[in-house]
Amino acid sequence: MSKGKSMENVVALAKHRGFVFPGSEIYGGLANTWDYGPLGVELKNNIKKAWWKKFVQESPHNVGLDASILMNPQTWVASGHVGNFNDPMIDCKSCKTRHRADKLIENALDEKGIEMIVDGLSFERMAELIEEHNIKCPTCGAHDYTEIRQFNLMFKTFQGVTESSTNEIFLRPETAQGIFVNYKNVQRSMRKKMPFGIAQIGKSFRNEITPGNFTFRTREFEQMELEFFCKPGEDLEWFAYWRDFCKNWLLSLDITEDNIRLRDHDEDELSHYSNATTDIEYRFPFGWGELWGVADRTDFDLKRHMEHSGEDFNYIDPITNERFVPYCIEPSLGADRVTLAFLVDAYGEEELDNDDTRTVLKFHPALAPIKAAILPLSKKLSDGASEIFADLSKHFMVEYDESQSIGKRYRRQDEIGTPFCITYDFDSVEDGQVTVRHRDSMEQVRMPIAEVQAYIEKHIQF
Amino acid sequence: MSKGKSMENVVALAKHRGFVFPGSEIYGGLANTWDYGPLGVELKNNIKKAWWKKFVQESPHNVGLDASILMNPQTWVASGHVGNFNDPMIDCKSCKTRHRADKLIENALDEKGIEMIVDGLSFERMAELIEEHNIKCPTCGAHDYTEIRQFNLMFKTFQGVTESSTNEIFLRPETAQGIFVNYKNVQRSMRKKMPFGIAQIGKSFRNEITPGNFTFRTREFEQMELEFFCKPGEDLEWFAYWRDFCKNWLLSLDITEDNIRLRDHDEDELSHYSNATTDIEYRFPFGWGELWGVADRTDFDLKRHMEHSGEDFNYIDPITNERFVPYCIEPSLGADRVTLAFLVDAYGEEELDNDDTRTVLKFHPALAPIKAAILPLSKKLSDGASEIFADLSKHFMVEYDESQSIGKRYRRQDEIGTPFCITYDFDSVEDGQVTVRHRDSMEQVRMPIAEVQAYIEKHIQF
Repeated sequence: MSKGKSMENVVALAKHRGFVFPGSEIYGGLANTWDYGPLGVELKNNIKKAWWKKFVQESPHNVGLDASILMNPQTWVASGHVGNFNDPMIDCKSCKTRHRADKLIENALDEKGIEMIVDGLSFERMAELIEEHNIKCPTCGAHDYTEIRQFNLMFKTFQGVTESSTNEIFLRPETAQGIFVNYKNVQRSMRKKMPFGIAQIGKSFRNEITPGNFTFRTREFEQMELEFFCKPGEDLEWFAYWRDFCKNWLLSLDITEDNIRLRDHDEDELSHYSNATTDIEYRFPFGWGELWGVADRTDFDLKRHMEHSGEDFNYIDPITNERFVPYCIEPSLGADRVTLAFLVDAYGEEELDNDDTRTVLKFHPALAPIKAAILPLSKKLSDGASEIFADLSKHFMVEYDESQSIGKRYRRQDEIGTPFCITYDFDSVEDGQVTVRHRDSMEQVRMPIAEVQAYIEKHIQF
Repeated sequence: MSKGKSMENVVALAKHRGFVFPGSEIYGGLANTWDYGPLGVELKNNIKKAWWKKFVQESPHNVGLDASILMNPQTWVASGHVGNFNDPMIDCKSCKTRHRADKLIENALDEKGIEMIVDGLSFERMAELIEEHNIKCPTCGAHDYTEIRQFNLMFKTFQGVTESSTNEIFLRPETAQGIFVNYKNVQRSMRKKMPFGIAQIGKSFRNEITPGNFTFRTREFEQMELEFFCKPGEDLEWFAYWRDFCKNWLLSLDITEDNIRLRDHDEDELSHYSNATTDIEYRFPFGWGELWGVADRTDFDLKRHMEHSGEDFNYIDPITNERFVPYCIEPSLGADRVTLAFLVDAYGEEELDNDDTRTVLKFHPALAPIKAAILPLSKKLSDGASEIFADLSKHFMVEYDESQSIGKRYRRQDEIGTPFCITYDFDSVEDGQVTVRHRDSMEQVRMPIAEVQAYIEKHIQF
């Protein structure tokens, strides 16, 4: 890991430079909520656009969707979330703190050098492990727990004017089900033939017991999901296709290959309905964390909705007349997590020749919040420089900055990851040329103002 | 209103062609929820991009933000939503239906030819009006009501693992407060001087008693809000500036001027803290409806948050050293409403020369979901036509369609508002030229394939 790349430094820069602020900070915050500042929203939007471009716009197979967060609660009965979307919760009787039992055990075993996936074990087995290994409360050190209980992770609310169970609804815990319930509407209206996919970006909500690690695990989060429908038997081929496609998307946006790993689920880790699952993980300063889950979900979801809704999701092949319920490949990406990964990955501290240091975010130019900064050398030059701002801002995000020394202004643009600085000087008024400085190499080239737009657009292409 | 432009026709086309589907339809829906289909999400995204481009990207004053939906509940105490964000609710004792008292009265008076704004009157006065005018229940005709009661419109939920009042939180009923609580973080990190604005796009939730009119009034909806901060005394000037700016944005995207009106609030309609408010309304088939509220909110919001949080939001002018709490202009636009307005406005049914008719959505090319359709005249031509798809899809949304007759394919593209159809025929293989058909004029021009991208990009600019 490169120098200075700690979560502390990234979080501090994120706040100081307008990427991410603590949510509701003036009221002491709210659990682990975060707000994207002016640069954070541009970064995240650029990531969402880059995803949409490759997964929807350029795809001959896929189309988009934007379903509601609030859905008929039968959806969550059918999907299994009402019955099974639970975390095992345990309280310390001594200090009253509340823990996720599986995480409590995993962390304690991890400290003893034992690697074990506890998620999915029975409550009985978890309780045994706590006894066997004499696992202590991480807060107070006691070994005195309540029983393990189920805690459903869906946020619930009430729609309409009374609070009764009949109008209890949930904030969606995933965007995927919005796609499944619309499967037929999309297939019909877009006259789609197999294989085809439906992509969606949107907020989901999970009442996590222990959110944390900055924006990595939050109760409110955004997903970028694709459900790709295909003929049974062709699913493993498409699964491999999308797994590679996802990895390549990350690499094409300049994420460091060494910080990425693909973790295939073993037989016993796989969900009962899944033919194959791979997690694409990123090496954060706090350890490896899942960005993307790519799963072959077979016909599990569509069949569940067929049973619960009475709709027929059979597809009839127009050529062979074969009739089948499609299988489904789901690459599901956390938008906040991947934004954090790009932010962490871009972060670096460099020593310069003149004993100086600089902090620099080496974003792929397509992801950089600001593509170019227009820096007049003197406030007397603001007329000509403002014209450049007006011209370039029609095409991409630019910033205008005439305060402080040019060196300080360069440092600030490095810190926010701006790939190009355009210096407008007294010669520019005469010769119509500006100096364009590259963020990474710090090299400078002189070029006519009229050529700057095309020059930058060539570099920010994705 | 042009031929065939009814809500019924627009809703039917929206569903049939993949713009808007009923939410959770396979489970019988959920109240008035709607999901954006493949074309709807493109249309809405194009509208959001067009807004962001003019209100953020090209603006020398404004920056963006993306705050959480879940906020510290103190926010809503400070904003007044906990205390005052209520609708007056009344039940019919006879048939048990529930009504908004103000709407019940307004509708009844309207039928008698009396125009009156009841919203804001005391409950006492509303009860009197119901008696005076002997207002009957619109469902059963009885005149036997409960008392009028307050109903708070915020959705509430519980964060954390117990359901107690201490962890009761709300789904935000507006995006504006996410901006106000971040005012200082944004101003500082972006080193902003007065005047400057903070813009945000995001979901909000209001537990409306009677949602309706398709996507016009829904409980879950998306807002595009700008909070523009300026020096007290300069507020009315900026108010006028943004009111015009908003109207011009709509017109520049080809909305019919006759279907737009600006309604200034009278003295007695103005909120106590507002210096001026104008609603920009659109003439829907169901009547005039508010798209955009432009309000001069003075220093009301920042002062409320100063009182409740203890933060100091005073701004010190760097030149004059004047100290003041900024005034704020708020142009607040409903993303779903303006999407509906653009959809309705674009809708038309035309009689053609050959006794045929066509339905056409005459979107501004920048808003059209699909910019160009690639139509090979024969399935034998799919190789060359697919190459055009691959090339153009790198730059904008295109569709590939080789089914049915060319006439039917044109009609479908007209119905979804595609500005250009590119016909690839047997000559194209030889001469490298294609026929480009314009949606509105139906005129066709022959041009080299290599020139198509630039030709279309010129037309879709905004």
